[in-house]
Amino acid sequence: MERVELHACFGGKQEVWSHASAALGCQMRFAIYLPPQAQAGTCPVLYWLSGLTCTEQNFVTKAGAQRYAAEHGLILVVPDTSPRGEGVADDAKSYDLGQGAGFYVNATQAQWAAHYRMHDYVVQELPDLVEAHFPANGARSISGHSMGGHGALVCALRNPGRYRSVSAFSPIVAPSQVPWGEKALGAYLGPDRSAWQAWDACALVHTATERLPLLIDQGEADEFLSVQLKPHLLSQACAAAGHPLQLRMRPGYDHSYYFVASFIHEHIAHHARALHAP
Amino acid sequence: MERVELHACFGGKQEVWSHASAALGCQMRFAIYLPPQAQAGTCPVLYWLSGLTCTEQNFVTKAGAQRYAAEHGLILVVPDTSPRGEGVADDAKSYDLGQGAGFYVNATQAQWAAHYRMHDYVVQELPDLVEAHFPANGARSISGHSMGGHGALVCALRNPGRYRSVSAFSPIVAPSQVPWGEKALGAYLGPDRSAWQAWDACALVHTATERLPLLIDQGEADEFLSVQLKPHLLSQACAAAGHPLQLRMRPGYDHSYYFVASFIHEHIAHHARALHAP
Repeated sequence: MERVELHACFGGKQEVWSHASAALGCQMRFAIYLPPQAQAGTCPVLYWLSGLTCTEQNFVTKAGAQRYAAEHGLILVVPDTSPRGEGVADDAKSYDLGQGAGFYVNATQAQWAAHYRMHDYVVQELPDLVEAHFPANGARSISGHSMGGHGALVCALRNPGRYRSVSAFSPIVAPSQVPWGEKALGAYLGPDRSAWQAWDACALVHTATERLPLLIDQGEADEFLSVQLKPHLLSQACAAAGHPLQLRMRPGYDHSYYFVASFIHEHIAHHARALHAP
Repeated sequence: MERVELHACFGGKQEVWSHASAALGCQMRFAIYLPPQAQAGTCPVLYWLSGLTCTEQNFVTKAGAQRYAAEHGLILVVPDTSPRGEGVADDAKSYDLGQGAGFYVNATQAQWAAHYRMHDYVVQELPDLVEAHFPANGARSISGHSMGGHGALVCALRNPGRYRSVSAFSPIVAPSQVPWGEKALGAYLGPDRSAWQAWDACALVHTATERLPLLIDQGEADEFLSVQLKPHLLSQACAAAGHPLQLRMRPGYDHSYYFVASFIHEHIAHHARALHAP
């Protein structure tokens, strides 16, 4: 494991590390923000999953989350959005399939299965690595944006007990029912749509054994709202399943990091309350 | 003048505009943040000048300044760092000369003089445009980073009465005495070094007729500190000239926007005090 970036930031350290991932079978990068509190003791960790086309860089350069992580004593861990490298399958024509578009699933189809296991990487391998090498105290929460919002919801719903809290900005809540999700799940999991249900937040709330409240912020001026995101489908699913949901529609806000930056302090505070609870 | 971006951000609007610049003889872009207070009345303006290789994008996507501008009711205006376009002279081999490296001077040398008039653009044309088309109340302050820190100091020192306050992050304080400045001033102004003095903060403090205090933050781990920035030269010049200077050395911080983001709230508050003073 090699540190490839180190910057002082809000009294703590913004770092980027490179390591060989066993789950993904390739070299991966992740960003980690260590707040000032991590110099003297251990801290809980908030995992952030980014959206289509992103790397480990987008959130840490654009969201301004480090200020609030420093205030609340949280470590931020931000993985890349897919396996990477020349030996890794890709769809060079598409921004929404292949590298940069892992969708946080474990692929089953021949072309993708060797490397595209972002769920196992995010839920198991990366936390193991972080908790072994950094001053993390073992408490975890998860959040993300767009495809990463889908990832955060699915990781939390599939793994009861693993996360203290979950939230999302502008998530793909029903990948089985929208073009981005149909393309990606069809490729990674195959044409049998019943296999997609295990990776779809709207389906998973019906079988969740842990009632972890879902906190979601969604911009009303989001250019992907009506075709790709459809948050009302999650509202309906949560109502039917009795799953707790707080969905906040934000007038005027779009899909960009300007939206994430405007409300990330509320998400950090939400996770800090859960992560610092006794 | 055409708006090319619009994003809701911290209750206000982050916009990017494109316009034909008379001073520069080319199409230019600038970013403008309009805080919530600008919806109901006029606000003062903080101009931000960016560093080498930057466009109007870097500061508004990475510094997190909009939160503080919204708190204090300031408009932020962020120009590009040079004239642009196919008809504009450039040095394709260099990141530190030509497009992306205007150094905020008015060039006198034949190759550059037609377009490279960033001083007049920043000090006169852009404020005229902003004050004609946006709810700006005429009060101005100026700040910047690296080459843009040099630009902010020089614009303020050359134009007494035009700015209420000035600050800089990691500025080039003595371009006449460091490699970046010697290359750029030599190209834009010619080999006669006496002509460079009118564009060098360390020289200008000796002839300044207005004692506007200079606020500077400088990271001690800045990779350009000892060769390009040399803040001690400004300390010495200000001491000799009796010019007020607050130079804050910040242990551990480098030259990146992680440094700017960590302390921009203090600069915004500094400018807000001056801009809102009766």
